[in-house]
Amino acid sequence: MDLNPRTPRIPPPPGARRVRMVLAYDGADFLGWQRQPASPSVQATLEAAFARLLGAPVAVHACGRTDAGVHAEGQTAHADLPPAARLPLPALHKGLNALLPDSVRVLSLRPASPLFHARYDALAKQYRYRVWNAPVEHPLHRRTAHHVRAPLDLPAMRAAAGLLLGTHDFAAFAANPHRDQSSTVRTLHAIDLVKKGPLLEIRVLGDGFLYKMVRSIAGHLLRVGRHAVPPAETTAILDSRLRTARVETAPARGLSLYRVYYTRLPSRL
Amino acid sequence: MDLNPRTPRIPPPPGARRVRMVLAYDGADFLGWQRQPASPSVQATLEAAFARLLGAPVAVHACGRTDAGVHAEGQTAHADLPPAARLPLPALHKGLNALLPDSVRVLSLRPASPLFHARYDALAKQYRYRVWNAPVEHPLHRRTAHHVRAPLDLPAMRAAAGLLLGTHDFAAFAANPHRDQSSTVRTLHAIDLVKKGPLLEIRVLGDGFLYKMVRSIAGHLLRVGRHAVPPAETTAILDSRLRTARVETAPARGLSLYRVYYTRLPSRL
Repeated sequence: MDLNPRTPRIPPPPGARRVRMVLAYDGADFLGWQRQPASPSVQATLEAAFARLLGAPVAVHACGRTDAGVHAEGQTAHADLPPAARLPLPALHKGLNALLPDSVRVLSLRPASPLFHARYDALAKQYRYRVWNAPVEHPLHRRTAHHVRAPLDLPAMRAAAGLLLGTHDFAAFAANPHRDQSSTVRTLHAIDLVKKGPLLEIRVLGDGFLYKMVRSIAGHLLRVGRHAVPPAETTAILDSRLRTARVETAPARGLSLYRVYYTRLPSRL
Repeated sequence: MDLNPRTPRIPPPPGARRVRMVLAYDGADFLGWQRQPASPSVQATLEAAFARLLGAPVAVHACGRTDAGVHAEGQTAHADLPPAARLPLPALHKGLNALLPDSVRVLSLRPASPLFHARYDALAKQYRYRVWNAPVEHPLHRRTAHHVRAPLDLPAMRAAAGLLLGTHDFAAFAANPHRDQSSTVRTLHAIDLVKKGPLLEIRVLGDGFLYKMVRSIAGHLLRVGRHAVPPAETTAILDSRLRTARVETAPARGLSLYRVYYTRLPSRL
């Protein structure tokens, strides 16, 4: 989401080609998206594969930074290929996936317009937060779902979720809300709770999300589901615009950046 | 399945209690179910947890041995708790899960009748073979699904699957068919192909399965799906009762022992 519509768009240098890509990764193997000294990041892993194939450094700009342990099924990014890189895109795509560890994959790679920006041009993002709600954790879901032993009151959770819909100041649902954004107002277009057997998915669609906002929403809804807080209190928490211990941050491993939308919002999650 | 209805049932020793359990495990972390010297097996891992909690050796008998890399969502087993073990079952259940690595879980543990036998009393088993059918492998499915790049002809696969239904000599769909069974005749009660996006599940329900039979069925159906063999040839292969290179064994990681049925067959998979 471009919070500042006047953000300058910088085209690629002369001769360079801008490309866009969709990425999936297993967050368990990384300390998040962002390049950091001496720790495995998705960004550095991708940039190393680009550099090895093209023989020149390439910066990869994601739609959004995901935290340590957070997964992605549809992260998006753009990059400028240096003028000397004449490799056709299908060959580059195959080459990247051949070089990457199997915890990261480029799902698609295609040409972008010179002013395309993965972050500024995104209309909305969908995240999914997965919960394995059963007395015993499941070994095949342990990497991608948060385990909640206690039974959850889904109607109460849905009632609370409904109170979060729309445009609000979400400061109470962010960790360190003013870290890097001047405004903490965001629009939550849709929120849906889908249960299939013990697997619960909290699906959220919004124009943008503050730092740890989805995990805070999930943590709050799970407290409501365990009757630790009544659904109606959601509005009071939201209106307080203060992050306190009333809102819990759910663990990273349940979260996945599911899809980013550039042309129109989905009709359903 | 009890191929020999006269198999003697041995009750627990005096004072011992027989218990039955449902198990789930991530096969990637084990060299199969069966206890083996110097390699991690699910059986040895479970037996070590029982022994540590009860202070005496306990043998755990599964419904069926799963191969290296094969997962389980509903493996079943029985065991006899030694007379000295007075721990209530709920405490034993919690204790086991606390001691086990997170790649194995006891989903349920309950008393069994003294002559219950996890293998002999099973009416049928359901396995699911999962395929991620897309140009690029998915990092979040890489541990539990086999990746097939080529498009698959599902109607052809369903036609071939239909020819396997019923009671047949499945020797052509087993690896080393006479390894430990005198008869290679089995009954396939149901076979269903369920596709959700790129994820294809081949679900099979049968009274019993020969060594690598489900992976051979999956491997064959995938060859049919890639047009490497016409669906109608399934009958000729079956009738040959000879295992040849015409039938491929699909990789272990796509396979999961989904459920074992003791009282009645499911109405749908």
